[in-house]
Amino acid sequence: MFRIGQSIDIHQLVEGRDLYIGGVKIDHDKGLLGHSDADVLLHAIIESIIGALGLGDIGKHFPDTDPQYKGISSMVLLEHCYQLMDKEGYEINNLDSIIMCEAPKMAPHIQKMRENVASKLHCDISQINIKATRGEKLGFVGRQEGMVAQAVVLLRKKGV
Amino acid sequence: MFRIGQSIDIHQLVEGRDLYIGGVKIDHDKGLLGHSDADVLLHAIIESIIGALGLGDIGKHFPDTDPQYKGISSMVLLEHCYQLMDKEGYEINNLDSIIMCEAPKMAPHIQKMRENVASKLHCDISQINIKATRGEKLGFVGRQEGMVAQAVVLLRKKGV
Amino acid sequence: MFRIGQSIDIHQLVEGRDLYIGGVKIDHDKGLLGHSDADVLLHAIIESIIGALGLGDIGKHFPDTDPQYKGISSMVLLEHCYQLMDKEGYEINNLDSIIMCEAPKMAPHIQKMRENVASKLHCDISQINIKATRGEKLGFVGRQEGMVAQAVVLLRKKGV
Ligand SMILES: [Zn+2]
Ligand SMILES: [Zn+2]
Ligand SMILES: [Zn+2]
Repeated sequence: MFRIGQSIDIHQLVEGRDLYIGGVKIDHDKGLLGHSDADVLLHAIIESIIGALGLGDIGKHFPDTDPQYKGISSMVLLEHCYQLMDKEGYEINNLDSIIMCEAPKMAPHIQKMRENVASKLHCDISQINIKATRGEKLGFVGRQEGMVAQAVVLLRKKGV
Repeated sequence: MFRIGQSIDIHQLVEGRDLYIGGVKIDHDKGLLGHSDADVLLHAIIESIIGALGLGDIGKHFPDTDPQYKGISSMVLLEHCYQLMDKEGYEINNLDSIIMCEAPKMAPHIQKMRENVASKLHCDISQINIKATRGEKLGFVGRQEGMVAQAVVLLRKKGV
Repeated sequence: MFRIGQSIDIHQLVEGRDLYIGGVKIDHDKGLLGHSDADVLLHAIIESIIGALGLGDIGKHFPDTDPQYKGISSMVLLEHCYQLMDKEGYEINNLDSIIMCEAPKMAPHIQKMRENVASKLHCDISQINIKATRGEKLGFVGRQEGMVAQAVVLLRKKGV
């Protein structure tokens, strides 16, 4: 009836890229490096759902060597992910996640991120939680060389 | 009926601070740096519950810029967190957590930490699990520059 | 009826050791350092189950100072872990996990790892998910100094 999933995603923070987190374009002097838009939070969320379904990982479904995913918005991948979940007969019970970044501030953007995720996963915003924490100057997050996101999800079988 | 939550917390380890983990004052030559007592384990536990409730993050409820939380015991914050959960109509199903630190040894203190957490969350000690692991000399945990804690929690609706 | 658990494990990558992940011996110029075979993924999986049961951590059950565990296959520890779970009256609902390593490629070995874990935990392979991600050149995973694995598990009471 229930299935649990989790994930962690990491991306380098580099100059010359736009910063997308949770489907929100955030004003910053650097952005995340990746084949797609490198939305670290959406990747962790997508992969936690794939994991809960027992369907492998994000690289299996959206290979970063596939030209069709080059520069793609991770909001599109999240929609594909919803279709996978729906086809398997599951829906979101609730999801919790965290963004680890030293800067910029995430707080002003959290509500919009939750709306983005809830809309693509066809659930209520109360079922989606997004947290943010700083690296406390420690490690590559603290040195602003990269960002990390983690997510856990509880899915439930539809109609049960 | 069920809600899942998670968190990760990080603090620097510095001289001139007392070390509090899981509400236990542990004898050590360094302590964790923060606005409150910087109890990295209780922060991860508190935030996993806030996350499960869909109520944002610890910074939203207990801002580290608020003078009323300066030097506060995180045991007091855990009590506030229980009241939030209780008001929302949820209780602890069970909680699992891990402390990542190179030194000192956590094993002698784990039982007391579990008692502390269970007492504040009004549940049985069997519902609270606390683990410890070393950083294997790798990264900032391995270099004893900081500590990390992670937690996951499963809440259940009361009276269901 | 349900119990949640989680874990994270870390091992150094060094020359002169065989590399075991998920019970699979993988061809590589380095291996993980530890008292047992240092199978980072199986350790995270084992400890997530111990955590869900509220029975402490892997060090409590399989101390790395105990000569009987020196060089032991973690597949044997996983079998002990199943017996603990069975004795407590729980079974696997589902488990999700992730290996964080820069190289070598994990994808060719994932299916065999899932079979290994499912066989020892007496469950179907569809209940076991294993993911892999790279460190994106960041931190000790990115520098190929070590590997990390994380797991979450949902157990359910047998016969309920
Ligand atoms: Zn990614
Ligand atoms: Zn903290
Ligand atoms: Zn280990």
